[in-house]
Amino acid sequence: MSQGRTAPLRLQDVQVTDALWKREMELVRREVIPYQWEALNDRIDGAAPSFWMHNMKAASRAIAQKKHGKYVPRQRLDGMVVEPKDGETPLDDGFYGWAFQDSDGYKWLEAVAYQLAMRPDEKLRSQAQVAIDAIVAAQEEDGYIDTFYTILGREKAFTNLKDHHELYCFGHLTEAAVAWKQATGREDLLNVARRFGECIARRFGPEGERGCPGHEIAEMALIRLYDETGEEKWLDMARFFLDVRGTEPNPFALEDERRGRARNRDNYRYYQADRPVRDMDEAVGHAVRQMYLASGMTDEARLTGDRAMWQACLRLWKSVVKEKLYVTGGVGGTHVGEAFSRPYDLPSDTAYSETCAAIGLAFWARRMLEAEIRGEYADVMEMALYNTVLAGMAMDGRSFFYVNPLECDPAACRTDERLSHVKSVRQKWFGCACCPPNIARIVSSLPAYIATANENEIYVHLYAGCRMKARLGLGQVEMEICADLTRAGHVTARIVKGQGEGVIAFREPGWTKGASFVCPGKRAFEKDGYWRFEGAWREGDEVVIDLPMPVRVLAANPMVRETAGQVALARGPFTYCAEEADNGKGLHLLRVDPRTASEAEIRTVVIGGAELPALTVKGERLCGDDRPLYAEWKEETGDTVDITLVPYFAWNNRGEGEMRVWLNTK
Amino acid sequence: MSQGRTAPLRLQDVQVTDALWKREMELVRREVIPYQWEALNDRIDGAAPSFWMHNMKAASRAIAQKKHGKYVPRQRLDGMVVEPKDGETPLDDGFYGWAFQDSDGYKWLEAVAYQLAMRPDEKLRSQAQVAIDAIVAAQEEDGYIDTFYTILGREKAFTNLKDHHELYCFGHLTEAAVAWKQATGREDLLNVARRFGECIARRFGPEGERGCPGHEIAEMALIRLYDETGEEKWLDMARFFLDVRGTEPNPFALEDERRGRARNRDNYRYYQADRPVRDMDEAVGHAVRQMYLASGMTDEARLTGDRAMWQACLRLWKSVVKEKLYVTGGVGGTHVGEAFSRPYDLPSDTAYSETCAAIGLAFWARRMLEAEIRGEYADVMEMALYNTVLAGMAMDGRSFFYVNPLECDPAACRTDERLSHVKSVRQKWFGCACCPPNIARIVSSLPAYIATANENEIYVHLYAGCRMKARLGLGQVEMEICADLTRAGHVTARIVKGQGEGVIAFREPGWTKGASFVCPGKRAFEKDGYWRFEGAWREGDEVVIDLPMPVRVLAANPMVRETAGQVALARGPFTYCAEEADNGKGLHLLRVDPRTASEAEIRTVVIGGAELPALTVKGERLCGDDRPLYAEWKEETGDTVDITLVPYFAWNNRGEGEMRVWLNTK
Repeated sequence: MSQGRTAPLRLQDVQVTDALWKREMELVRREVIPYQWEALNDRIDGAAPSFWMHNMKAASRAIAQKKHGKYVPRQRLDGMVVEPKDGETPLDDGFYGWAFQDSDGYKWLEAVAYQLAMRPDEKLRSQAQVAIDAIVAAQEEDGYIDTFYTILGREKAFTNLKDHHELYCFGHLTEAAVAWKQATGREDLLNVARRFGECIARRFGPEGERGCPGHEIAEMALIRLYDETGEEKWLDMARFFLDVRGTEPNPFALEDERRGRARNRDNYRYYQADRPVRDMDEAVGHAVRQMYLASGMTDEARLTGDRAMWQACLRLWKSVVKEKLYVTGGVGGTHVGEAFSRPYDLPSDTAYSETCAAIGLAFWARRMLEAEIRGEYADVMEMALYNTVLAGMAMDGRSFFYVNPLECDPAACRTDERLSHVKSVRQKWFGCACCPPNIARIVSSLPAYIATANENEIYVHLYAGCRMKARLGLGQVEMEICADLTRAGHVTARIVKGQGEGVIAFREPGWTKGASFVCPGKRAFEKDGYWRFEGAWREGDEVVIDLPMPVRVLAANPMVRETAGQVALARGPFTYCAEEADNGKGLHLLRVDPRTASEAEIRTVVIGGAELPALTVKGERLCGDDRPLYAEWKEETGDTVDITLVPYFAWNNRGEGEMRVWLNTK
Repeated sequence: MSQGRTAPLRLQDVQVTDALWKREMELVRREVIPYQWEALNDRIDGAAPSFWMHNMKAASRAIAQKKHGKYVPRQRLDGMVVEPKDGETPLDDGFYGWAFQDSDGYKWLEAVAYQLAMRPDEKLRSQAQVAIDAIVAAQEEDGYIDTFYTILGREKAFTNLKDHHELYCFGHLTEAAVAWKQATGREDLLNVARRFGECIARRFGPEGERGCPGHEIAEMALIRLYDETGEEKWLDMARFFLDVRGTEPNPFALEDERRGRARNRDNYRYYQADRPVRDMDEAVGHAVRQMYLASGMTDEARLTGDRAMWQACLRLWKSVVKEKLYVTGGVGGTHVGEAFSRPYDLPSDTAYSETCAAIGLAFWARRMLEAEIRGEYADVMEMALYNTVLAGMAMDGRSFFYVNPLECDPAACRTDERLSHVKSVRQKWFGCACCPPNIARIVSSLPAYIATANENEIYVHLYAGCRMKARLGLGQVEMEICADLTRAGHVTARIVKGQGEGVIAFREPGWTKGASFVCPGKRAFEKDGYWRFEGAWREGDEVVIDLPMPVRVLAANPMVRETAGQVALARGPFTYCAEEADNGKGLHLLRVDPRTASEAEIRTVVIGGAELPALTVKGERLCGDDRPLYAEWKEETGDTVDITLVPYFAWNNRGEGEMRVWLNTK
């Protein structure tokens, strides 16, 4: 945290014009958000119902009945998920879905708020209001809101924070509430969050019970609530949750004991709760939770100057970036617990690499940037956003990946239980609908990732075409960035309106070589991966940036067992993959020469209606049929072939087929 | 089946003198068999009880009570395994262990019989007699014998052949009975098998119910019973089981329907019962079962000249050898169902490669040889025996592997659920004790694998030092083979007694190059991998064989995804591996140059008290720490190191540590 801290610009102040990202944002607005609204209301034929609105209404009926003292739950509170039995009509007064089903609607509302901040939409706004009214009605008198417990047994509320995600739902509620306030100025949802927060604070805290979220997010959400409202108590609550986590007596152990379970310290590691957060040094357990926790820790360190916390953030960062990050910007090497695996264990075919975990990594990386400007944070944020996050959604916005393998053979996925978590085509919607609404909220808030700023500095992190308005010293500037990384690395940043005095800085991405940054008349220097131009700025000032985008032939550290002898190709922010659509079946038979692969030819292909840069690299295809299984080694020479590679995020948009990021070498 | 068929020599007629195998056979006699006897009687402190003798006695008590019409089971028949509840004393009249627990004692008896055939041992013989008397007493009046059903509910007998292994137990009973008869001349156990066989025949058969073994072995056991007794009905029963398998109405589907389950054709594939056996073309499902089925099919084809069956055997053989065989002679690529995976899916670290499956492969390969002399069958039989089968047992005979990975990192095995089936040290004894007694029976019957013969031909398949007596034409010869493949490939085969006229043939192993076979005065020609010497033989005749054993640097077919860019080293019948004991941790960081690796130096090491040939090969060790996770590819050069490799079978005899068969290359 050596440099000045920065914060994202307001969404209202950034208009995205970038070909790639504008398309994605509009897909979310046009396809994902309307579809999800129908899904939340169980109006999608052939899809498993979400029960979100159902649960809200059932909860508000339960509350009404409780007022008259006569509510009796009609279902037993048992387990994490409630499904109507075969052929049974769901009870009007029943709870259905995952215990944390409430969060789906909150995530949807957050995405809607972001979209409304950028562009008014009366229909969307009124749908959101319907959702918010339902939420308001589902809040109990003491502020408690979690339809699972309201319907199934309020007396059990807060007894299983480890698994039942009440505080997770609170976190998503709060994120949505702040976004809604920032987009519309309305405090209705914010008050729901505040009241729930106060309800939580009456039970948990330094003077109350020890407790913290089993699935983190409340930490960063509370800090956002503090940022928005200035109310210190939310920062205090975030700090309490962070401070109590993993300390003795362990809150989860207390819960387990109260519920008659054995304490299980090993298992608490899965929840990032086996030690105090300031002692953490390895990214472990459920990957999404780890990313959300790290985001909250980073926020806390930034706001309070907590050096021990910041050191822990740096150690966790190093753990991820040095040992646990896929070349596609994904994290989570194992499906067992959707979790981080041990260091350097990054299998391609059995990868979990959940979309939400890459989203969480982008959350965290931006927060690291907010705390400290350093190109590495932006490199990783960009890698997650441009590869695994985008891969999570089909290019028509209608289907989604949870799991993002780096190698996929559909035939194997269909028959092999060891790959049962890997889907070879994106799915319409999921019973546990975490990733699609999470994609909607991050894509809709992309402007928050493009640049961060403080009073007299603007840092441009992502080269996405846009027009942004920002304060600069005593003035204000509007800057237009022309960029399209799907084509080339030529960027201009031009002040189109206003004037100001201070620093405008531009990141030198890790993937470029021989970049130039030119802005006549400004003092320029490079520091920590950013070119900083300092001076007085006014209309017409222009920074011309050239970011050569050579094809990079990447090898993994030899500590990674799974990719020994393999290379991945990348160009600019994009990691590439070979697909069956271009190269036929048997992608493992393809080999490239790593010495010459960077001479790949770049050409434009159209996938899902978008023009994207493909690579063609000379390689060879070995032939395996009709040969013995084992034979004495000899130099292999296969048939010479052109191997076509496309950006990883665009895979599986041309039908089902094999895919492979890491290619064998000769 | 173009050449003359052969059969193994009698165990009594082959005396093994080979350093390696004599040691293993004595280990089994000295360590394994006595330990297993104690285990069968639940007298091993600290080990889970076997309940074998307990169940036999409980069954005989149940039978006595049934005679008085008052037997009521005290446990419910439910599931595949019965364990005493925590702290509960096992019921005297209860059944415990796996549904197929009976087979453990049968396997033990079979091994004992083989040992007794070769060397009298009064104590062992009387222990065996105690076991047999217990078996005799546990047989019901109608010949039925299966303690699980006798104790838990005879009325349910034969209703779940698919899962409950009654016919599997019958098969092992029969194998033991024939071995016992051949070793001792006694028919007591043979009569138990016959009476159970007759009981089965009253229920199942062309005129009775459709039914066949869920876990095969009865097929080959019945053919052995036929071979021994000449009673056609056993061959008929074997044919019935083979013929009915996978045909409509599918016997397993009938069972499932009767038990109120849905029929599940996909699942029947796991049991090799999704199609008629003569239509099979791919080794699938549970690997041990597939090997046992193929063994029975091959026996049937050999005996009856069933061409369609033989063609199916050839197709299955090709499927295994071309697509599904580990370089260690193991089979079974996936732990899911302990099964064959899809073609060319041969992962090293998550391999199942069950010891029993390699044993089954050796059974089958020998039967293929009995039907048709062809070097390839012996090559595979040898590969299984000298590598995975031997690896199954520690060099002190006191602990055992079920699963035989080709790459093992103990730290990963301990923490990674995806590797939970892989143990990084051999285990003392298992609740499901299938592999240890199976090792005991195959190692004790090694002579049956060394050579097979008919009236006027002797084929020597394995170069294990021994002295054998065999008929040859109208005469009989005793031949001494001097060989020690742990040292070199110099072999002499000398007639030390008797005379005869005919062919003595010697295999030219696939692993040798420039071999020479010299026997002055005999007509010699090579066919199908064997050098055949024909003429009159008498004392003093000698065949001098030189089998050069170069170090072979093996690469897998590029269709195998998992071993791209890797090589395995082998010499003679031994596949090699690198161990942490010699090379330190991080075996994946080692690289060899495949162009020069065959220049490895051969030296003697002592492991577990045995002198074994190790290889030292020049290589390099890459360094991964303190480097970024991904970087632009460049030619790597590590530190030059000597890499030591030891025969795979001897791994994990010097403490727990990493192991790796496939090495990365530069």
